Amino acid sequence: MHLHNFTTKYIMNCIIASTSTVHGSKYLEYLIPELKTLYIGIDEVLFIPFARPSGITYEEYTELATEGLSDLGIHVKGIHEFDNSIQAIKQAEAFFVGGGNTFLLVKTLQDLNLMDVLKERVAEGTPYLGTSAGSNICGLSMQTTNDMPIVLPTNFDTMGIIPFNINAHYLEPDPNSTHKGETRRTRIKEFQKFNDVNVLGLKEGSWLELKDDGLQLKGSLNAVWFQPDEEPIILKPNHVF
Amino acid sequence: MHLHNFTTKYIMNCIIASTSTVHGSKYLEYLIPELKTLYIGIDEVLFIPFARPSGITYEEYTELATEGLSDLGIHVKGIHEFDNSIQAIKQAEAFFVGGGNTFLLVKTLQDLNLMDVLKERVAEGTPYLGTSAGSNICGLSMQTTNDMPIVLPTNFDTMGIIPFNINAHYLEPDPNSTHKGETRRTRIKEFQKFNDVNVLGLKEGSWLELKDDGLQLKGSLNAVWFQPDEEPIILKPNHVF
Repeated sequence: MHLHNFTTKYIMNCIIASTSTVHGSKYLEYLIPELKTLYIGIDEVLFIPFARPSGITYEEYTELATEGLSDLGIHVKGIHEFDNSIQAIKQAEAFFVGGGNTFLLVKTLQDLNLMDVLKERVAEGTPYLGTSAGSNICGLSMQTTNDMPIVLPTNFDTMGIIPFNINAHYLEPDPNSTHKGETRRTRIKEFQKFNDVNVLGLKEGSWLELKDDGLQLKGSLNAVWFQPDEEPIILKPNHVF
Repeated sequence: MHLHNFTTKYIMNCIIASTSTVHGSKYLEYLIPELKTLYIGIDEVLFIPFARPSGITYEEYTELATEGLSDLGIHVKGIHEFDNSIQAIKQAEAFFVGGGNTFLLVKTLQDLNLMDVLKERVAEGTPYLGTSAGSNICGLSMQTTNDMPIVLPTNFDTMGIIPFNINAHYLEPDPNSTHKGETRRTRIKEFQKFNDVNVLGLKEGSWLELKDDGLQLKGSLNAVWFQPDEEPIILKPNHVF
């Protein structure tokens, strides 16, 4: 079943993960086997810490990323350590864009004029790992983020290296909940009343693997595929888009 | 305890509620006793349906509001029924701004140039009921909404009839959760890393009553008061700001 006939003229090599961390496991630990393949032959990964989870500094966040990738024997350098961030992206061997606040990530990429150059390098096949906010920016827009609008970006457009939007940390409604705030499904369907964009609800522990012209759902969990004006569809692990 | 020495030169008369609906009860039902006082002597309430919960139409939403207020014997008219929405606000006897998507509510108020005129009428003492998104716009900004950015407003500024922000449908973290997405507390503290604004976490079933120069927490539940760089404080029912 091809819900979206995904083809691309680009050579891409991405892991687009719902979360950096799954319950009971260390930062990035569950992804290490995949990252050994993604980053094969790479000496240094350029880390983009702009999403600043809990408001931590770029330095603190880069330290966390370095620890998370330490088993791979790869050097991690934060983009803030370079004088020229555009050049840093142009020359990077591989990327890791960490999670946190998507509004902050997108605004910072916009302010520094980095969104297009990052997309170009990913489209060329430069290895890319995104987690959470770093995965949201792989979609067409950041409009299906769960984050609070703590800063105002110029617009909501993101890289569009996949032809739909991600909802990271996707959760199904709890049937026993007495809470009346909107469920995740309701929020995504509201988005689709105003935007003709498909959305993938990606649970914690799931990721998309994008290789050459193939896009596949990985991990052991189902994902949920939302199309405007249609009932959501459950996608099984290893679904090919 | 005065966490915020709340004084105003305005005469205001508002109910600012976390939610329209509590579990096991009909739309607005739990607020009816308060609304009998808020809307005393009022023949017609101007309903502002711009937040469109689940994307329902203005007509459908106004019908829901009419049913919700039917026990009060008050006529409800949607702002979309008027040719001139600025005049409609200038001449209204009382307001009800319903919940839904806060981005959509704020953008529509901005596009129609209504935010300032609404604030002026509320500051004069015109009765105002806000629920959820309609309460968020009573704060300084909409930046502590839980909603998805389904449309892009010009900016995030709201009426500021109270000198802090609301987080509606506030939920404490579930200690048994295995979910790694940010908790509500984490999101609010992230907001405060970038914005020097206090935030009130208002649980479903709580509301603020704003009368003349007094602001009070109502309902039977605690609320949570977040100040930048400080630990959150629990506020008890009937707390006076």
